[in-house]
Amino acid sequence: MIDIEVLRRVSDTLVARKKADPDSSYVSSLYAKGTDTICKKVAEEAAETIMAAKDKDMLHLVWEVTDLWFHSMVLLAHHGLSVEDVLAEFRRREGVSGIDEKKSRTAQQADS
Amino acid sequence: MIDIEVLRRVSDTLVARKKADPDSSYVSSLYAKGTDTICKKVAEEAAETIMAAKDKDMLHLVWEVTDLWFHSMVLLAHHGLSVEDVLAEFRRREGVSGIDEKKSRTAQQADS
Amino acid sequence: MIDIEVLRRVSDTLVARKKADPDSSYVSSLYAKGTDTICKKVAEEAAETIMAAKDKDMLHLVWEVTDLWFHSMVLLAHHGLSVEDVLAEFRRREGVSGIDEKKSRTAQQADS
Amino acid sequence: MIDIEVLRRVSDTLVARKKADPDSSYVSSLYAKGTDTICKKVAEEAAETIMAAKDKDMLHLVWEVTDLWFHSMVLLAHHGLSVEDVLAEFRRREGVSGIDEKKSRTAQQADS
Repeated sequence: MIDIEVLRRVSDTLVARKKADPDSSYVSSLYAKGTDTICKKVAEEAAETIMAAKDKDMLHLVWEVTDLWFHSMVLLAHHGLSVEDVLAEFRRREGVSGIDEKKSRTAQQADS
Repeated sequence: MIDIEVLRRVSDTLVARKKADPDSSYVSSLYAKGTDTICKKVAEEAAETIMAAKDKDMLHLVWEVTDLWFHSMVLLAHHGLSVEDVLAEFRRREGVSGIDEKKSRTAQQADS
Repeated sequence: MIDIEVLRRVSDTLVARKKADPDSSYVSSLYAKGTDTICKKVAEEAAETIMAAKDKDMLHLVWEVTDLWFHSMVLLAHHGLSVEDVLAEFRRREGVSGIDEKKSRTAQQADS
Repeated sequence: MIDIEVLRRVSDTLVARKKADPDSSYVSSLYAKGTDTICKKVAEEAAETIMAAKDKDMLHLVWEVTDLWFHSMVLLAHHGLSVEDVLAEFRRREGVSGIDEKKSRTAQQADS
């Protein structure tokens, strides 16, 4: 089994890059360009994930999901959030089945 | 710090659901509907992630990124893959900076 | 050749629906749900367009592009805009080649 | 009122560019790169449309919808289709309300 802590290391690196020179790395340049540029990357990687799935190209699919997760982590870091927040949300949902989760959301939305 | 193993538990549950009755859970119904339905969910969650970022709604952003990761894990499971494959790809990239990573890809693509 | 005025008739109908009861039609219900719901539909139809192209399913591709244009017209109408504004923008671009258009944009962005 | 025939002129130009040198124009370069590159542009323009709507930036919204329609016309042309096919589909749907349209689709899908 792969060391799952890699996600935390990537996340920590993304936070560290926030103070770096925009020209020093790909991620620093994304932060400098701002939310819209990062969001466009998320959309692009989602499209590439879908196309890899349609191609039934497994290697490519893993690659694109990694890119998608990576760029959503950049988006989180850009907003002062991290993979910890996503893990906490996954933890909160544990034990709640998908269907119940959906119902609880619909109920919440009806309340709001 | 949150128990990062939650991702593996979610991943294991997604694999286990593949043998379940399509009516037994939200995820089982997604598998039964197939790749296009799961891909549409990935696109939808990417759009919701972008809208939450534009709203600067942090709670919502975490929620949508969790949904996005969840549905991309469903897509992986549907193709016999798992979070382990994504972690392995993150591990492979460690030590390779974004800019170098991009260069190595461009080089690879030029080769192919 | 097909009567191109169909686009104007669709556009006019979309504007007329803005005053209708939310329960009276699919479009009225979209307006009532608001921008996020309409945007999600645009994202969904874009994803379906991509999947139809990957499937090389021509009938489906035409169908999905029609859905995509339709929902982007709903989004325009929801913001007090219409197909006329899109046609005007296409008119403005006429005679400007894609490459020149791109250059003029980059120049504009550099100015702003 | 704007000359709606502009859409046909754009469409005709897109078809003409299919025989051109890949380096001669932006559109020719898209055809040369193929379906995935064009699909990525469609996804990107859909994301930009959504972000312009969230910004309530009307000028930008018109611009992005134009880009979205333009690139979906490139995708159609790449597959031997054109705006005529989309207009024909809009014509077919005329007189069918959104809700009925949705029902007829569900019925069709249930049949298949």
